[in-house]
Amino acid sequence: MNNLNHTYAVIMAGGGGTRLWPVSRQERPKQLLPLLAEETLFQSTIARLEKMFPPERILVVTVAEQARVMQEQAPEIPFENYLIEPAPRGTASVVGLAAAVLKLRDPKAMMVVLPSDHFIRNRDLFHYLLRAALDVAGKGYLVTLGITPTHPSTAYGYIQQGEALNGEFKYPVYAVKRFTEKPDERTAQELLRTGDHSWNSGMFVWRVDDILAEIKKQMPALSDAVTSISASWDTPQRDEVLDTLWYDLKVETVDYGIMENAELVAVLPAGGLGWSDVGSWNSLLEVLLPDMNGNISQNAHHLAIDTHNSLVYSNDNQRLVVTIGVDDMVLVDTGDVLLVCKSDQAQKVRDVVEHLKKHRQDKYL
Amino acid sequence: MNNLNHTYAVIMAGGGGTRLWPVSRQERPKQLLPLLAEETLFQSTIARLEKMFPPERILVVTVAEQARVMQEQAPEIPFENYLIEPAPRGTASVVGLAAAVLKLRDPKAMMVVLPSDHFIRNRDLFHYLLRAALDVAGKGYLVTLGITPTHPSTAYGYIQQGEALNGEFKYPVYAVKRFTEKPDERTAQELLRTGDHSWNSGMFVWRVDDILAEIKKQMPALSDAVTSISASWDTPQRDEVLDTLWYDLKVETVDYGIMENAELVAVLPAGGLGWSDVGSWNSLLEVLLPDMNGNISQNAHHLAIDTHNSLVYSNDNQRLVVTIGVDDMVLVDTGDVLLVCKSDQAQKVRDVVEHLKKHRQDKYL
Repeated sequence: MNNLNHTYAVIMAGGGGTRLWPVSRQERPKQLLPLLAEETLFQSTIARLEKMFPPERILVVTVAEQARVMQEQAPEIPFENYLIEPAPRGTASVVGLAAAVLKLRDPKAMMVVLPSDHFIRNRDLFHYLLRAALDVAGKGYLVTLGITPTHPSTAYGYIQQGEALNGEFKYPVYAVKRFTEKPDERTAQELLRTGDHSWNSGMFVWRVDDILAEIKKQMPALSDAVTSISASWDTPQRDEVLDTLWYDLKVETVDYGIMENAELVAVLPAGGLGWSDVGSWNSLLEVLLPDMNGNISQNAHHLAIDTHNSLVYSNDNQRLVVTIGVDDMVLVDTGDVLLVCKSDQAQKVRDVVEHLKKHRQDKYL
Repeated sequence: MNNLNHTYAVIMAGGGGTRLWPVSRQERPKQLLPLLAEETLFQSTIARLEKMFPPERILVVTVAEQARVMQEQAPEIPFENYLIEPAPRGTASVVGLAAAVLKLRDPKAMMVVLPSDHFIRNRDLFHYLLRAALDVAGKGYLVTLGITPTHPSTAYGYIQQGEALNGEFKYPVYAVKRFTEKPDERTAQELLRTGDHSWNSGMFVWRVDDILAEIKKQMPALSDAVTSISASWDTPQRDEVLDTLWYDLKVETVDYGIMENAELVAVLPAGGLGWSDVGSWNSLLEVLLPDMNGNISQNAHHLAIDTHNSLVYSNDNQRLVVTIGVDDMVLVDTGDVLLVCKSDQAQKVRDVVEHLKKHRQDKYL
């Protein structure tokens, strides 16, 4: 059993994203919204860490505008645990910065990297798997949590597992054979059939020393930058050094910048977590609990007649929404915008956002 | 050619109706709403009479609350041409009252009875058919305008035609063989197949003398009442007499109270009028002119993606409505209510209104 006193959660929260438009907007990214509950996705991510990580061992990496809102949403996290990126430079930079700062604060640190905007139903299992992953990371592995696929999704990257690791771990864990980018539908079906592919969840567990060593080997420029930045972190020069070095960083993901070519990479394929990246409106139909007709009303006064497998999401429960003869539909009402979308076409919301940008209809963005 | 100087249009405008909820409400019945154009259905009905009926020969029969709004919408119609019912007592009473009052004002009067809330695209043909019907009425017939059916509708009553009338009329006209109430779907299909059935449009043409004689024969109580009421019409006793007699009248329609058993009844089956009773939301898909995907946006800022044969009706064109993968759907947005309804189930809007009444959600009614 590893000692959690040196274990830190690093929440990556810089992203924007347009797939949950019109609720998610340029100024109000997904993680800051109460999409699934009274609390925001960011707040749920924090709450999910309870009992495992006290607030002083939770770090948040984000951009300045979002940090202000997050500090209001999670005031229990110490101010100095918000690491502010001058601008998003990809998850590799986020991980490098967080690891370098943690190394200063606690030379024995282990870190768990988590997106700020995902959903996990089964919190106990999540904790159990994190502890299992920490055991593996304690042996020097860079561990990624895979998600056992439930359908041939084209929305996620995939991780192929190789040999099972030896080491008496409390959950099956494997060497990583290959990372695959988001596939087309046919490829996704083939990957699912192999039985040895997991979805890439973007959750990672490792020792700070190990990830810094790997960054030094594979991304020396990033390594130099975060070494300099972290050296200045608790000095008056922090902003100056950060501004000088940060913008020159290559935009890169952890997966392709570090994980893909690292030597000791392990995947822990998690089934039954009830996980979702809440990546599109139809994912809410999977995550939230529907009524006996398969319908979900979120903050809506919904009168459903001959309506099935449909989501009504509103920001105003005084407004009456009546659906008659409606199947497999997503309705999203933000007051200024009404979206009515067949649930299997929810990914086209991106096209709408592109269209609005192109036609300079900024007030809806 | 008849002399139009003695011809009057009587517009029946007392109805309520719930089939166009949520736009039509208890306080704002359909005829008072700009459903199809900038003008209201009532205003369109008036405008449609232009060149044939000057305002002083247009009468409106309605209830007091509606009369106030109508006088604002059609100020050109003289105040004394609004005949106010104390309460709706069916179309037979409306026709009796209007005929009795007209008889006083012009003993040679002929009258054209028209609903206030229908749509007719082909105004020239409408005038032509009214003149043809007036010719027939001039020979002593009670004439009803039938509409040549375009589909086996269950929303209308049907009129079966018998022998063609002799008389050198300028349009084919027939004796009426039978009135049929709104049929079920199978019966409607059979009626359509006969080729001799028309929809009952609720438009009638006759001499005032003839309709009064027929009322006296078939509905003597109504005849006595409207005789007394009309005698007091231009006296200070009008309201007293009206209040005393009106509420005791039997609620009855022209069709079943008078037409069905009258002797000289003729039907003029009109094709190509572009007529609709605007009786449900899907009728708007027939009446309004769609774009190349079959979509109609009425006062809406609508962005349609993979959307076909759908209507978006809004009261706020600042609100963006986005539809993705939506077919055969009606969307109605009134601010306080959003209705999303498969177009072939639009008649279920009535059930919604019943449900809201039962659950005392008056603010939506």
